[in-house]
Amino acid sequence: MTIVPVPSPAPSPRAMIPFVSVDSMMRLVNRVGVEQVLSELAETIEADFRRWPAFDKTPRVASHSDVGVIELMPASDGDFYGFKYVNGHPGNPISGLQTVTAFGVLAEVATGYPVLLSEMTLLTALRTAATSAMAARHLAPKGARVMAMIGNGAQSEFQALAFKAVCGITEVRLWDIDPAATARCAGNLAGSGLSVTPCRSAESAIEGAQIITTCTADKAHATILTDNMVGAGVHLNAIGGDCPGKTELAAAILHRSTIFVEYPPQTRIEGEIQQLAPDHPVTELWEVITGAAVGRTDDAQITLFDGVGFAIEDFSALMWLHRRIGGTGLAQMLDMIADPDEPRDLYGMLRRAGA
Amino acid sequence: MTIVPVPSPAPSPRAMIPFVSVDSMMRLVNRVGVEQVLSELAETIEADFRRWPAFDKTPRVASHSDVGVIELMPASDGDFYGFKYVNGHPGNPISGLQTVTAFGVLAEVATGYPVLLSEMTLLTALRTAATSAMAARHLAPKGARVMAMIGNGAQSEFQALAFKAVCGITEVRLWDIDPAATARCAGNLAGSGLSVTPCRSAESAIEGAQIITTCTADKAHATILTDNMVGAGVHLNAIGGDCPGKTELAAAILHRSTIFVEYPPQTRIEGEIQQLAPDHPVTELWEVITGAAVGRTDDAQITLFDGVGFAIEDFSALMWLHRRIGGTGLAQMLDMIADPDEPRDLYGMLRRAGA
Repeated sequence: MTIVPVPSPAPSPRAMIPFVSVDSMMRLVNRVGVEQVLSELAETIEADFRRWPAFDKTPRVASHSDVGVIELMPASDGDFYGFKYVNGHPGNPISGLQTVTAFGVLAEVATGYPVLLSEMTLLTALRTAATSAMAARHLAPKGARVMAMIGNGAQSEFQALAFKAVCGITEVRLWDIDPAATARCAGNLAGSGLSVTPCRSAESAIEGAQIITTCTADKAHATILTDNMVGAGVHLNAIGGDCPGKTELAAAILHRSTIFVEYPPQTRIEGEIQQLAPDHPVTELWEVITGAAVGRTDDAQITLFDGVGFAIEDFSALMWLHRRIGGTGLAQMLDMIADPDEPRDLYGMLRRAGA
Repeated sequence: MTIVPVPSPAPSPRAMIPFVSVDSMMRLVNRVGVEQVLSELAETIEADFRRWPAFDKTPRVASHSDVGVIELMPASDGDFYGFKYVNGHPGNPISGLQTVTAFGVLAEVATGYPVLLSEMTLLTALRTAATSAMAARHLAPKGARVMAMIGNGAQSEFQALAFKAVCGITEVRLWDIDPAATARCAGNLAGSGLSVTPCRSAESAIEGAQIITTCTADKAHATILTDNMVGAGVHLNAIGGDCPGKTELAAAILHRSTIFVEYPPQTRIEGEIQQLAPDHPVTELWEVITGAAVGRTDDAQITLFDGVGFAIEDFSALMWLHRRIGGTGLAQMLDMIADPDEPRDLYGMLRRAGA
């Protein structure tokens, strides 16, 4: 008897996982248009917030060190499961590295097989801005057209363009302790159609603004806005306070505001409201969207979106990408899942590959 | 003034993540030799168990559905951080898919940057077998040469070869409720140097064996070994009981055994000892390795390694791979981390890529 070695067949399509690289993500966003992407993300995230109770919500799993944190953020709607890996290392820029980098995976719940691996540094910046703008569409005063932006770092242009695309903002007023950051943000927004006004102080930036976005990066309790700076009727979009020990707003502002959050168990640890008593009343944003809770009730009210970033937003972003990347040719197929011709014969696959 | 567009520089080496595909993993293992790989993994895992208290240990984060589970298993030694994504879907083989697939990531704690992405379906099979054999080296009776293997599925050949390479086993006696599984396992082990004896019953398989490995796959409380089948002096390597509701041994066997586990908080939920009282005495394997606890004390003792698989073993396996893959040319570099020329200018990078 002659034994003829059987060559391993190519892996099944299910074993090949589409990968969206940083380069592919940039191509996709530039092809679709960044404002269109932000609008689509805001719609996707809002639709997922509308079915909030359908999600399996787990607090992020964090591994802390002296110099930073590495987190895994899982979420599932019962059909798909997504998770994001994200780090936060404030000292990284000194070595020319990003403070925050991220990647993520989407998988099918029915089989457990991944269906997408993607860079998520850019995608997180996009989903964060889309979430802020989506929240403001529900909470900001009607007819808001001017936004102050305190903190002009990596998140600032995405926020500005999301508020333009989703809320109809026409002017942004910029301030940062680093004038170079403001200059870079203003330069990046040139030609966007937004009127861009660099300002000499935070006080000057908020003049005439109906929306104030804070997105500074210091990992410390800082008072970016003092109580007297925030007038009646504005909407505050507080993005920078997003981990324990890092806040941006004077506590007095919080006491004057109606506070809206993504997921209270996480926001009470990571958000501006870590400064408040653990039972301080907050409204969950998803309830405003479904109509179960009220949002803005009068023109003089200060509304505050205390955004920290929640896993469902990453899930929404991965689902959006999963739909959008198909047929573009931008995904690279990775041989990531072992696919023996006979499921129980893992060793045989290895052995035949070596023959 | 003329503005000259600056082309985006290529990403820095730190932004490119080495990826080990299934194909590359098979090439590496076949190049090094599977027994050599198993020996090296056993050494690496043992060295990490020896410094057990240095690890940040987190129970796995599981997302359950009606048809399976998706888990994230993180671990860190303070210098590196690793996690594994793994699913368990007993119904998958009906559709030609694997019950368990896995991939993992290793990252640098100092920067949070990933340094390795790898398939881990094969790597998990290898590390599971290496862990079993490493435990048996400390617990099995001296001079053990014959191992019974109850359950001849995907894990079986790896177990057999690990026990040959690490413990000096010369004969394996096979039994499975599915004769085709036994035939395939025997065929795969032909030429390995092991004496392979297919048996007609579990009772027959354990005749003369000093080590009994159970690695069946049913997701149910099953009694693969009854009390009368286990004689004095043997070492039990119980691998298949690895999630709530899934066990292989009659409880009476557990009561006659000295039980060794990886990480009690996890094993009490997932292992054979889920059948016992929550305070039933168990010994942590790492303490046997450091000498802080005793292993086997006499020839008549039944030792039981109740292995469920712990995140530190995956960490060890990823670290082994990280060292071993360098210079082989087998890793594919993935553009996974956004790397703006100026760390805070993420939007500028996107904009310039579209110019």
